[in-house]
Amino acid sequence: MATPHAESAGPRSSTALLTDQYELTMLEAAIADGTAHRSCSFELFARRLPDGRRFGVVAGMGRIPDALARFRFGEPELAIVSRFLDATTTEWLRDFRFSGDIDGYREGELYFPGSPILSVRGTFAECVLLETLMLSILNHDSAIASAAARMVVAADGRRLIEMGSRRAHEESAVACARAAYLAGFDATSNLEAVRTHGIPGAGTSAHAFTLLHTTEVASNEEAAFRAQVAALGVGTTLLIDTYDITQGIENAVAAAGTGLGGVRIDSGDLGVLARQVRNQLDGLGATGTRIVVSGDLDEYAIAALRAEPVDAYGVGTALVSGSGAPTAGMVYKLVEVDGVPVEKRSDHKYSLGGTKRAIRLSRPSGTIVEEVLYHANEPAPDTGDFEPRDLLIPMARGGKIVDDLPTLEDSRALLARNLVSLPWEGLKLSHGDPAIPTRYAGKG
Amino acid sequence: MATPHAESAGPRSSTALLTDQYELTMLEAAIADGTAHRSCSFELFARRLPDGRRFGVVAGMGRIPDALARFRFGEPELAIVSRFLDATTTEWLRDFRFSGDIDGYREGELYFPGSPILSVRGTFAECVLLETLMLSILNHDSAIASAAARMVVAADGRRLIEMGSRRAHEESAVACARAAYLAGFDATSNLEAVRTHGIPGAGTSAHAFTLLHTTEVASNEEAAFRAQVAALGVGTTLLIDTYDITQGIENAVAAAGTGLGGVRIDSGDLGVLARQVRNQLDGLGATGTRIVVSGDLDEYAIAALRAEPVDAYGVGTALVSGSGAPTAGMVYKLVEVDGVPVEKRSDHKYSLGGTKRAIRLSRPSGTIVEEVLYHANEPAPDTGDFEPRDLLIPMARGGKIVDDLPTLEDSRALLARNLVSLPWEGLKLSHGDPAIPTRYAGKG
Repeated sequence: MATPHAESAGPRSSTALLTDQYELTMLEAAIADGTAHRSCSFELFARRLPDGRRFGVVAGMGRIPDALARFRFGEPELAIVSRFLDATTTEWLRDFRFSGDIDGYREGELYFPGSPILSVRGTFAECVLLETLMLSILNHDSAIASAAARMVVAADGRRLIEMGSRRAHEESAVACARAAYLAGFDATSNLEAVRTHGIPGAGTSAHAFTLLHTTEVASNEEAAFRAQVAALGVGTTLLIDTYDITQGIENAVAAAGTGLGGVRIDSGDLGVLARQVRNQLDGLGATGTRIVVSGDLDEYAIAALRAEPVDAYGVGTALVSGSGAPTAGMVYKLVEVDGVPVEKRSDHKYSLGGTKRAIRLSRPSGTIVEEVLYHANEPAPDTGDFEPRDLLIPMARGGKIVDDLPTLEDSRALLARNLVSLPWEGLKLSHGDPAIPTRYAGKG
Repeated sequence: MATPHAESAGPRSSTALLTDQYELTMLEAAIADGTAHRSCSFELFARRLPDGRRFGVVAGMGRIPDALARFRFGEPELAIVSRFLDATTTEWLRDFRFSGDIDGYREGELYFPGSPILSVRGTFAECVLLETLMLSILNHDSAIASAAARMVVAADGRRLIEMGSRRAHEESAVACARAAYLAGFDATSNLEAVRTHGIPGAGTSAHAFTLLHTTEVASNEEAAFRAQVAALGVGTTLLIDTYDITQGIENAVAAAGTGLGGVRIDSGDLGVLARQVRNQLDGLGATGTRIVVSGDLDEYAIAALRAEPVDAYGVGTALVSGSGAPTAGMVYKLVEVDGVPVEKRSDHKYSLGGTKRAIRLSRPSGTIVEEVLYHANEPAPDTGDFEPRDLLIPMARGGKIVDDLPTLEDSRALLARNLVSLPWEGLKLSHGDPAIPTRYAGKG
């Protein structure tokens, strides 16, 4: 390569190279020995939840149809793979279209250890190629949504704004905003997420705007506030902690009047400050002015502020890094070849070979009690007094994405219902076991 | 939105919306009150290193020219921002081109708390818009490169293969592969990184390929190995832990002969297994067959295997998640307005206002001893017997990217030299203080 200019990352129309090389070398070897066209079934699942988590949230399913549609080997992609593949394999890729079946858990569904959240069936050749792309999407988005859902639980109905883009890869940031909204966040700072996914946007100003109103003589916070109110209206949120918070509130109310929409505190002991700020605002007559807090918030900090007069939380780093679990750790495993269940030696403790179906059982109250996996070619197990619900829905048939997949709004609503269905311990933020057990029906 | 189809993520030709909304609302308010055209200086830095790290590695600089070139507001972008911006601001964005100056630390440079790794100067309007995109790129890539460099140190010259794509967002994965290569990794599994960044690719097969060779009668590992060797040659690496490792090695040597390139172990106690596998291979005459290990390796596990007969490491999750520090936590702060230094109340303990220059001092032996920051309008401080080196190089002048920026290969070589320049404690993997102090010259 000559200069960094040569390293242009985009725009990228094909997703086919978002793939590990070994999928293509396996393809070549399988084409050569005649096994490439065996009928295979792959499943994508997590062997365990991130340390101490009680549930996971499925996310990313809504991004799969687009990623799959763009999984095409054009000339630029073929030029790369032909460096290490034989001509037969390269030509095979030229015409590649996934033509198999995909089932998946809905976005917004809960998952637990072993939940087969994606089932991909077709020839070995076509299924093996999707491994990395499917895992990248689902591991990332599910990790973020799983953390975000805990924050939503902790916020207990208060407004949550996702503002972590700056702490994540620029494209990952867009998917983070999407996953957070799916989990119940109210808005995002990320404008590409507004465009691509239709999520409400949010954001008003940073410390830089206040600092901008510095002259050789002095800083001038009130001038900054007046400018912001003039441009954005009194409903805006003013950032009051650039210099002195008490003075900041005086300046804010002087600039906007008592109808000021909100103030934001981005540093310090947020609980103590929120109370002081509330008292001061109320004393000035700005009783309807909302208090927004931000600054290194995670689900624990959000919960700790429950008793304080906080109206909204801005969450950044902890959200986009999955609050300690930046990947869901899911794997994509071959489970059946020409109707024969297969499994790696050490996998039998986590799963069972063969294509599976999954149901979740509930009490009449709606509280979930167990997830049951069973072989797809066997009848559903007897569920006694419990109500079963099928977890896998068709996503693609014969390579064609099915119509009427859930929308992002559907998925957001589903997760809200699912969170209510957890046993009460399942919503605890402390480390613990999965909220419900996973049972392998028919396994000894 | 109607269906997930509507949520297409790409291809994306503009990077302009990879931006937080507040940058645009600040722009509107600043245009309205006449402050938008003030001459400003922003700096991007980390207040601290991730917990216990002794150095950070600057990465992402090579991706900035492309990202900046595509930072354009076309009709699709204007349609989004005009929803919340006034007509004057929207029209201003239509013609937007960054026209200021950028200096930055070279990729592959070490950084420490306070290091001003990016300096952006121009009008408030043009500088404030770049905040999120610059932070996203540098926070992500630097976090990954910083973790990767510790793995390179731990591997002590042995081959390192990046294979974490599946555990990261699909586009983040490409940047992770780049950051790992910059840090000294030898190859990546990610084919898009091969294409976009010219990094060597690697990868041969997964457990699925062995499992594919299952019939109704029995598994047939040797058939899988023979197929792989037939397609990829005896120099390939066979994955030997699908069933029984001892049998796997017998099958591998039976299929490939004693000239077999390598075997990979992906599970179990890798140290114990490596020794057993080495003994068995040697006993079979395959003395030149390399041993590759993978499976949840981080820098500590890599170091712990130093005494074992391991020839190469495959690293995934820990690499793409920054080994516990998935973001570098850098911030982008306004430090000077119309020649006047500015700073937020609570920032004086971390930095000093005003545009800064940075030099790093070395002993005659080449060992670095200190980083010194000083105001750009003051002379460089006296460095006594130490050799100073300028850390900031020009990246853009008048909005134009300068010629001959370092290539990825240049940066990789620079980091290799920089790692040698650290005081010996600086290379320890254990938690500790930054390897060298940062001094603010002229600060009382």
